[in-house]
Amino acid sequence: MTRSDSGTQRPGSTRRQFLLGGAVAGVAAAAAVGIDHALGSAATPSPPKAGEPVIHGGETVAFHGKHQAGIATDAQAHGTFVALDLRPETDRDGLRRMMRILTDDAARLTAGESALADSEPEMATTPARLTITFGFGPGLISRAGGSGVSQLPAFTIDRLQPEFSEGDLLLQIAGDDPTTVAHAARMLLKDTRSFATVRWTQQGFRRAYGTEAPGTTMRNLFGQVDGTANPRPGTVDFDEVVWRTDGWLAGGTTMVIRRIQMDLEGWDRVDRVGRDQSVGRKLSNGAPLTGVNEHDEPDFAAKNAIGFSVIPEFSHMRRSRSDNPRERIFRRAYNYDVPPAAGEISNSGLIFAAFQADVEAQYVPLQRRLDELDLLNEWTVPIGSAVFAIPPGCQPGGYIGETLLG
Amino acid sequence: MTRSDSGTQRPGSTRRQFLLGGAVAGVAAAAAVGIDHALGSAATPSPPKAGEPVIHGGETVAFHGKHQAGIATDAQAHGTFVALDLRPETDRDGLRRMMRILTDDAARLTAGESALADSEPEMATTPARLTITFGFGPGLISRAGGSGVSQLPAFTIDRLQPEFSEGDLLLQIAGDDPTTVAHAARMLLKDTRSFATVRWTQQGFRRAYGTEAPGTTMRNLFGQVDGTANPRPGTVDFDEVVWRTDGWLAGGTTMVIRRIQMDLEGWDRVDRVGRDQSVGRKLSNGAPLTGVNEHDEPDFAAKNAIGFSVIPEFSHMRRSRSDNPRERIFRRAYNYDVPPAAGEISNSGLIFAAFQADVEAQYVPLQRRLDELDLLNEWTVPIGSAVFAIPPGCQPGGYIGETLLG
Ligand code: HEM
Ligand code: HEM
Repeated sequence: MTRSDSGTQRPGSTRRQFLLGGAVAGVAAAAAVGIDHALGSAATPSPPKAGEPVIHGGETVAFHGKHQAGIATDAQAHGTFVALDLRPETDRDGLRRMMRILTDDAARLTAGESALADSEPEMATTPARLTITFGFGPGLISRAGGSGVSQLPAFTIDRLQPEFSEGDLLLQIAGDDPTTVAHAARMLLKDTRSFATVRWTQQGFRRAYGTEAPGTTMRNLFGQVDGTANPRPGTVDFDEVVWRTDGWLAGGTTMVIRRIQMDLEGWDRVDRVGRDQSVGRKLSNGAPLTGVNEHDEPDFAAKNAIGFSVIPEFSHMRRSRSDNPRERIFRRAYNYDVPPAAGEISNSGLIFAAFQADVEAQYVPLQRRLDELDLLNEWTVPIGSAVFAIPPGCQPGGYIGETLLG
Repeated sequence: MTRSDSGTQRPGSTRRQFLLGGAVAGVAAAAAVGIDHALGSAATPSPPKAGEPVIHGGETVAFHGKHQAGIATDAQAHGTFVALDLRPETDRDGLRRMMRILTDDAARLTAGESALADSEPEMATTPARLTITFGFGPGLISRAGGSGVSQLPAFTIDRLQPEFSEGDLLLQIAGDDPTTVAHAARMLLKDTRSFATVRWTQQGFRRAYGTEAPGTTMRNLFGQVDGTANPRPGTVDFDEVVWRTDGWLAGGTTMVIRRIQMDLEGWDRVDRVGRDQSVGRKLSNGAPLTGVNEHDEPDFAAKNAIGFSVIPEFSHMRRSRSDNPRERIFRRAYNYDVPPAAGEISNSGLIFAAFQADVEAQYVPLQRRLDELDLLNEWTVPIGSAVFAIPPGCQPGGYIGETLLG
């Protein structure tokens, strides 16, 4: 049933499992809901013919495994990030209880089954690659008597707002269907109610499932191809950059979430040459200024006729690439676009999410270099910042966080 | 090239047109962007085999026609509604200039071409059934020297907030890809800047394209099947309910947008029997309480063993169905789910959008009946309200609003 945690299942196989009774919990949920309905919309009655849409609402990403899902998983179209503050009375026992409940919810919801006490069970039957990823902030970890991560140091570019910063518990809820994501968020928040309160919520998006050929790199709202030079899930390189190997976080990772406002008005006033230079890549297709295709290797030594670097020293790509091979991260960002303030016409940016085994060794030096110099800083302002330890995955019967709380 | 305005085109045909030079403007845009890219992501290199995803980013809905698109069009996954206030100096000439520019933008963007002066032309090449629908509020119409619609009368259930109410110009921007919708909204707003300012923005969603079988009725965030008893685009019935036949609005319609907050917490405390009764339909599959399947005809006369109506008198369905065949509307709503206020865990509801030829004759009596009695009022509160005249469509060379402004 489960492939790697970036693997997905097609409706066909889900349906077969239901019909063969292979997925016992699934059948129970289906019985509760009325089996026709549980299968109904997600499964297609007959295999689609060429050129007919494939109904992808039934696709699932395995919840259980060595690592949590939602990291190596091909980024889904919608991502909701919720940070919670623990209630004063939530102690280590409370944390354990909370994480057992939330793990159970997440395992069910991501399999397309309703959570226990789900009052809208019909909303759960279209998982559409739903993943739920839990993160522990410094406050939660210290309340559990452990250690692991701390917030980032201050940077000169920061204009942080508390309503987008910090937090004890993170829920990253991602999926290809916005209704499913909304329902899952609600179910989880209902079950956190006696343990924690919502601190902030950020909702982001990438291209919809199936609008572009699989593997197309997303564009952010500056129109830039964003995500080209990123470790590739499934490679040794990715594993080395992302997964922690020691202590209670072994099999886990850390996550930095920065809410970065992008000044679309200012950006529009820059000509295309200036914009290409600010990143060191072409807006047209994301190719480095020294290359033709998106994935061409940049030539940082190349000079133009008058002796300047073709990829400028101040460009975002030059500045974010380190000579130290340790200083690398895995980016999994979402665009945000929310109603503008009075008198404005946009309020947009990036929910910049980075995963790395070690924040201090990998993320901080990189952010420091960008803080010192990066032409993109002209049009981008970090307005939120939070760091979370992402515990390893768990097996059926276990729960997320057991290596810290168990 | 164009079918009906609810028809869509597949990437294959768009691509063929590009290659054959059939779409002249398209080729020009492609040349500006670099033809590879313009085709690149939206078009699939070869027809998909059975079971492979169909890349639907290239699908378009015809902009030109008798009616504006985005009404009879099968509702797309994402809808952004922006209302603007005219600047004091925008006179009839200004309105005409503005609508010529916006019409040109909309015609291009919905065809997957970049707008004139689009500074991110690569963002325009994935239309994903983008439609842009314009509406004129009472203020705009009277500034143009005409008449047509007025705001709704006050209702006792209303708790209207000005930041979600009224407005002179409406943009309804809907599509299956959230990035495309965000880009289109931005392009249009840039071009309104000298004529108008943003009054409010509302962003909504339904299920993602392809997550459920085509024709599945959406669920709102109460988990209800919402949209069952609705006139069907393409029928005489629909045409009679929706399209205006007289005056400058002939071929157009009117639109009521109500932002209705849904109290998910309160709703959760009601048992399923109570919830089914509040609408008169089953949550499980939307069937009337007197039937088995969603589209079964309700039997309002049926009584239960103790003599009560099976479909209660106070139910939303009973109350919203009139004996007067004139009092009908076409609903095309979107869910909203935005970050909750401090201490809350949800902030959700419906961007309720209704189209009808005549607001006074069709919408108002219906809303009045619901204002008097409707069990759903227990858990729903209208917090925004706006009415717009939706001008007819236009032909190439014309512009939306020409029957009022020309
Ligand atoms: C709104 C803010 C940002 C924007 C718009 C942005 C945009 C981009 C773009 C367009 C690229 C080139 C294509 C690619 O390889 O993905 C890039 C690369 C990169 N960015 Fe950012 N970025 C932002 C913030 C950050 C931050 C905060 C960091 C880390 C602290 C970061 C780290 C990187 C890295 C490591 C690369 C790859 C460099 C390479 O090895 O070629 N970016 N970014
Ligand atoms: C948040 C508010 C609302 C919710 C949750 C809601 C929900 C529903 C549901 C579940 C149905 C039954 C299924 C269907 O036929 O679509 C329905 C039907 C209907 N609703 Fe609403 N509704 C809301 C507001 C309104 C408003 C404001 C109006 C008009 C003023 C309206 C007019 C109708 C009509 C005309 C029907 C079809 C009745 C029939 O002929 O069977 N609804 N609504």
